[in-house]
Amino acid sequence: MSFNSFGHLFRVTTFGESHGVALGCVVDGCPPRIPIEAAEIQAFLDRRRPGQSRFTTQRREPDAVKILSGVFTDPETGAQVTTGTPIALLIENTDQRSKDYGAIKDAYRPGHADYTYDVKYGIRDYRGGGRSSARETAARVAAGAIARKVVPGLSVRAALVQVGRHTIDRARWDWDEVDKNPFFCPDAEAARVFADFLDDVRKAGSSVGAVVEVIAEGVTPGLGAPVYGKLDADLAAALMGINAVKGVEIGAGFASAALTGEENADEMRLGNDGAPRFLTNHAGGVLGGISTGQPLVCRFAVKPTSSILTPRATVNRFGEETEILTKGRHDPCVGIRAVPVAEAMVACVVADHYLRQRGQVGTPPDWPFARPAGAPEEIPAAHTKVRE
Amino acid sequence: MSFNSFGHLFRVTTFGESHGVALGCVVDGCPPRIPIEAAEIQAFLDRRRPGQSRFTTQRREPDAVKILSGVFTDPETGAQVTTGTPIALLIENTDQRSKDYGAIKDAYRPGHADYTYDVKYGIRDYRGGGRSSARETAARVAAGAIARKVVPGLSVRAALVQVGRHTIDRARWDWDEVDKNPFFCPDAEAARVFADFLDDVRKAGSSVGAVVEVIAEGVTPGLGAPVYGKLDADLAAALMGINAVKGVEIGAGFASAALTGEENADEMRLGNDGAPRFLTNHAGGVLGGISTGQPLVCRFAVKPTSSILTPRATVNRFGEETEILTKGRHDPCVGIRAVPVAEAMVACVVADHYLRQRGQVGTPPDWPFARPAGAPEEIPAAHTKVRE
Amino acid sequence: MSFNSFGHLFRVTTFGESHGVALGCVVDGCPPRIPIEAAEIQAFLDRRRPGQSRFTTQRREPDAVKILSGVFTDPETGAQVTTGTPIALLIENTDQRSKDYGAIKDAYRPGHADYTYDVKYGIRDYRGGGRSSARETAARVAAGAIARKVVPGLSVRAALVQVGRHTIDRARWDWDEVDKNPFFCPDAEAARVFADFLDDVRKAGSSVGAVVEVIAEGVTPGLGAPVYGKLDADLAAALMGINAVKGVEIGAGFASAALTGEENADEMRLGNDGAPRFLTNHAGGVLGGISTGQPLVCRFAVKPTSSILTPRATVNRFGEETEILTKGRHDPCVGIRAVPVAEAMVACVVADHYLRQRGQVGTPPDWPFARPAGAPEEIPAAHTKVRE
Amino acid sequence: MSFNSFGHLFRVTTFGESHGVALGCVVDGCPPRIPIEAAEIQAFLDRRRPGQSRFTTQRREPDAVKILSGVFTDPETGAQVTTGTPIALLIENTDQRSKDYGAIKDAYRPGHADYTYDVKYGIRDYRGGGRSSARETAARVAAGAIARKVVPGLSVRAALVQVGRHTIDRARWDWDEVDKNPFFCPDAEAARVFADFLDDVRKAGSSVGAVVEVIAEGVTPGLGAPVYGKLDADLAAALMGINAVKGVEIGAGFASAALTGEENADEMRLGNDGAPRFLTNHAGGVLGGISTGQPLVCRFAVKPTSSILTPRATVNRFGEETEILTKGRHDPCVGIRAVPVAEAMVACVVADHYLRQRGQVGTPPDWPFARPAGAPEEIPAAHTKVRE
Repeated sequence: MSFNSFGHLFRVTTFGESHGVALGCVVDGCPPRIPIEAAEIQAFLDRRRPGQSRFTTQRREPDAVKILSGVFTDPETGAQVTTGTPIALLIENTDQRSKDYGAIKDAYRPGHADYTYDVKYGIRDYRGGGRSSARETAARVAAGAIARKVVPGLSVRAALVQVGRHTIDRARWDWDEVDKNPFFCPDAEAARVFADFLDDVRKAGSSVGAVVEVIAEGVTPGLGAPVYGKLDADLAAALMGINAVKGVEIGAGFASAALTGEENADEMRLGNDGAPRFLTNHAGGVLGGISTGQPLVCRFAVKPTSSILTPRATVNRFGEETEILTKGRHDPCVGIRAVPVAEAMVACVVADHYLRQRGQVGTPPDWPFARPAGAPEEIPAAHTKVRE
Repeated sequence: MSFNSFGHLFRVTTFGESHGVALGCVVDGCPPRIPIEAAEIQAFLDRRRPGQSRFTTQRREPDAVKILSGVFTDPETGAQVTTGTPIALLIENTDQRSKDYGAIKDAYRPGHADYTYDVKYGIRDYRGGGRSSARETAARVAAGAIARKVVPGLSVRAALVQVGRHTIDRARWDWDEVDKNPFFCPDAEAARVFADFLDDVRKAGSSVGAVVEVIAEGVTPGLGAPVYGKLDADLAAALMGINAVKGVEIGAGFASAALTGEENADEMRLGNDGAPRFLTNHAGGVLGGISTGQPLVCRFAVKPTSSILTPRATVNRFGEETEILTKGRHDPCVGIRAVPVAEAMVACVVADHYLRQRGQVGTPPDWPFARPAGAPEEIPAAHTKVRE
Repeated sequence: MSFNSFGHLFRVTTFGESHGVALGCVVDGCPPRIPIEAAEIQAFLDRRRPGQSRFTTQRREPDAVKILSGVFTDPETGAQVTTGTPIALLIENTDQRSKDYGAIKDAYRPGHADYTYDVKYGIRDYRGGGRSSARETAARVAAGAIARKVVPGLSVRAALVQVGRHTIDRARWDWDEVDKNPFFCPDAEAARVFADFLDDVRKAGSSVGAVVEVIAEGVTPGLGAPVYGKLDADLAAALMGINAVKGVEIGAGFASAALTGEENADEMRLGNDGAPRFLTNHAGGVLGGISTGQPLVCRFAVKPTSSILTPRATVNRFGEETEILTKGRHDPCVGIRAVPVAEAMVACVVADHYLRQRGQVGTPPDWPFARPAGAPEEIPAAHTKVRE
Repeated sequence: MSFNSFGHLFRVTTFGESHGVALGCVVDGCPPRIPIEAAEIQAFLDRRRPGQSRFTTQRREPDAVKILSGVFTDPETGAQVTTGTPIALLIENTDQRSKDYGAIKDAYRPGHADYTYDVKYGIRDYRGGGRSSARETAARVAAGAIARKVVPGLSVRAALVQVGRHTIDRARWDWDEVDKNPFFCPDAEAARVFADFLDDVRKAGSSVGAVVEVIAEGVTPGLGAPVYGKLDADLAAALMGINAVKGVEIGAGFASAALTGEENADEMRLGNDGAPRFLTNHAGGVLGGISTGQPLVCRFAVKPTSSILTPRATVNRFGEETEILTKGRHDPCVGIRAVPVAEAMVACVVADHYLRQRGQVGTPPDWPFARPAGAPEEIPAAHTKVRE
């Protein structure tokens, strides 16, 4: 069951509400003897932390993570390492303003989970969105920091490729740009466009959607499962499970509907090392639910932030019609903060499947007739042509 | 774990290869005392069965389903009903032509799972695609026929809305048309366009992708889970797990990236019965991972069939470069046959979450302050505006 | 997967080492709107807490539990209730003496998990037994306090019925005695025998085993699963999973091997209310893996504490032969503290199956031809004759 | 969830009723490239098959197993091997006598699952016990035949050590005797006593209980999980989940309650090869839930067959008091047939944990400071002293 857990062998369980005492996660099944320090996890949390620019919510919290269990000093190296037992990570909530929740306490904000939580459970913690707040994703980012270390050679990076109707120019894609602007945008010029556009959106008290792209490199071929729990199915669930996501695609994605079989086929040749090479990556690194060894390429759409300053018609829990608008700290484009969360989710999926493959088949698979194919030598990771 | 199982309380495990002895599934966790006859399941299988028009593979198999277990005569009604124990369904393979598999036996067909199965397992049943064949989806359709009966009032329907670059006109959407053309297309005029287009594609030995839309009505509000196992995340996994699917979206989907918060908000009013009504359904029936009571609206992209008559460059399992083309029975547009499969998968997801909700919260939830919202009275189920 | 989780719908994940920062658990899947206060959980923890008599380890910790998430104020009643989201419970470790672990750091204490943890993980937190310490059971007791509230009318009580070769006299069984002596013993006279015996054992630096009996009343009939996940199978796993337990039995248990079918059959009659009644309970409340409605009766054996003052031959992690004896705080009979833990585990199993049954079948089942049978009117819960 | 599935990475799902069309199982997660022939599975089924002596039920069925999926010809060796996809095994029911079920159709046989199935599901297949029949265990034996091949060097053997009050003499334990008598008894002399005793029981239309012991050798050290899913907890669930089992113990089991810490400690020395050796095996091969590398030693008690010729008081589904006796084919001691089933269940548990350990930790673990300990060189596997 997976009400609040994710993964099978690398299993993450999160807990906590936006304005409760604390939030956190338990990472179970992590291999032992992996060096890990709180500071490494903190670095990823700091990247996700809101309030770092005028384009994300002004809630300011240190989001300081504590490791409660599952680590110990390696007697040989003296480094702090995982022990194979559950790693509990805790982030205390410090910025719990005692504000008046009068409006959202009873009325259902359109686009938010207020109504559905009330219908499902008959009760909800309305403070800051409670369990449905994007604040929960801090726990995922923390877990992802561990997941990254489980798979040797794994690199997972994400970037914002569209805001509203403004898209990047893929020819200008530069990973080094991603951390130089407040949007995780790989195209410096597009970042300037995003900034101007979002300033307008923000001043209007409005919001706008976005598209994020995630690329995972160093993914061992052979990860996935043939029918259910396909690697791409698990990636789809992981990304669709991020707050406000409404669509997910792998490789050529929705654009593949308009392709012919000839266009879509990723042909293969041998590389100089004698190992198979794919000439293109329309598949986005997954064929038949199983990784090809090429970069995983995923893209997902984030809807506009539902909290806006314009009043919207709604009802309240007393069965009355009313109107609501959302004041206070909010993101004009929640897609920005989804970038580090997406990296974490993809890392968790890959780590889980890496351990599952090792469990069922052993590793490294040493088949006499097939060697893992690397990424195409001359083709950039984010090469996949997408619908724009 | 879910190598070959799907769902938690309503749990489907499938088995079987395309050209093996038989394929089938075990449905575990089905509630007892649900009337079910093999003929009801057969009706859905017949709808999926290939070889019914020139647009789907000419493999002709009766796909006759046998119920092996889990049903018994109700002593009160005399009807055959489920007993709550596992329902095993068997479909024997009869059309196993003893053809020469020489080419695909050793060489990896681009776009197929040949290479990835070999890398993963070190062995594969290459006959007709083995486990990765779309034939496996017959087992899903069979399971879906049972899932539909688990949730009172549930209706799940799907339709083909795009083939290649040709899309339907949503103003002409008519569910009655869906079973009148070989494409499950709800727009009679578009169906004629599809037919001409696909005839050309077929004659050229080529293939093309498609987009399918699934609508589930009668979905109880409150289904889903707040963080992992969100209803939309499980739908995404279910649909991405169908062969050849490369993208999934819910409600406004990828189009929501270009919307503003004002446009995207589904406002609420009270209906004449005093129950909440949404005025639009950009959410596609899910908010915060939990069903709203509105129709679930999902869309997914299917890549073009990888089996084409044009030779493609590839390698074989001996580490040699070679070329391959696929002769024999194949679909020019595998998206067509995905339509009944998609219905089945969505039915399984809803049935599972229906039982999960009943387990955790009980049913019907009788909250003092919230009544389930029905679909908007005046708005058609498939109303969501999509990117085209 | 269940490395550190237990249950399916009512799912408990624990974390923490004996001398780490903190230990605790996440309870996922708990129904919403159940009133719960930290004080209620604390009461059960206090009962388990060591150091309350000379017969249990002198480690003195307040074991103060904090609820971190998953509860909120009910807007109608003002009471703190569950919200249906994960309930995280935290117990900070305060008594972490900075002692010298030199001996147990490298050498493997016979009967302890030192060797097996090192072989499994290649590293272990040796401080106080780390993850294998009985201290972890505090988290289970905390979870059990919530589980008890999930099932209406459920009562779970346990008692120590044997210490070394000394057994209670079942004719003197009095539940009121259980909390009047430091052994949870239902026979006041036996408690005096236990006290004298254990004083000798303790002074000798030795230890001794025990048998605990758990009785659950108010268990709805129909809980369990027919083949795997039988109620008794899950109870067996739950109790065998308590530290130092080496045997588990249900109802007549091992004694049933010597019974005839005539002796063992629990005959049925109708009670005054017209509902079925069993005349005996050799089954211990479970037939075919499914609860009968009679009291669940489980018994389990706890081995003697492995930490003793007599030196034992062992090896160390450097591959050398050595000897070891255990100084410091330890229980002469670890079976005593297993009593509240066993209650918690049984409560968790019953709560999980209660929700699973509600999920699959709905509740209350209202079959036309069978009403749940209560416990036999004239027969005490703990009546089952056992081998002694 | 595990209504009808068992295991996590090596996962077995069974289906089928005693007198339905067929029964069988799906084995998911089996590693690829393991040679397996139907004949190998059949050999284990033949050993379990009833009707081979006057001491087991006279139902005569060939129990012929068919492999439906998951195997293919290894291109290198030409042998039939597993492919890593689900292995479906089918056993058709041929001996479905169309007898009159009048009595058991409505009345609840004491000791059987009739009442509990009706209370749980509101319906049951009463023919031959339906799903609760011991016939279901054929599917487990079939799965176990595969599980045995997953773990290199694994040997799992079981034996009947007690029938009624008659126990074997452990000094005469001889594994070669087990297949020379109809009781799987390792003591030829005890087998003669069992025969005389069971002849009397059988002629009296009565039945009697039994105790079975299972020994698994070649179990890699390090298998298990630290808290939940402990190896011994999973073994307890697996064995308690066999029909009619009422108690399970590991190693010294219930006898350990009467031992002192000094007696119970399994001391360690180094063997001639420098690897650790245990001097005794009171632990039964498990410490802290993790395998030690010593033989796993489990024992379980089977209650007397509930079907007897003496009428017993009961009620029927119409709420009337009545009497019932069981005519027809039945075992005087169902414990006999539990022997091969127990071997299969233990093999499945070990295979599952073997893959789980490989998944989390990798294999072989190559720790610098600990080498796996073998079994004690001079000590027989079944040496553990037990209560008698």
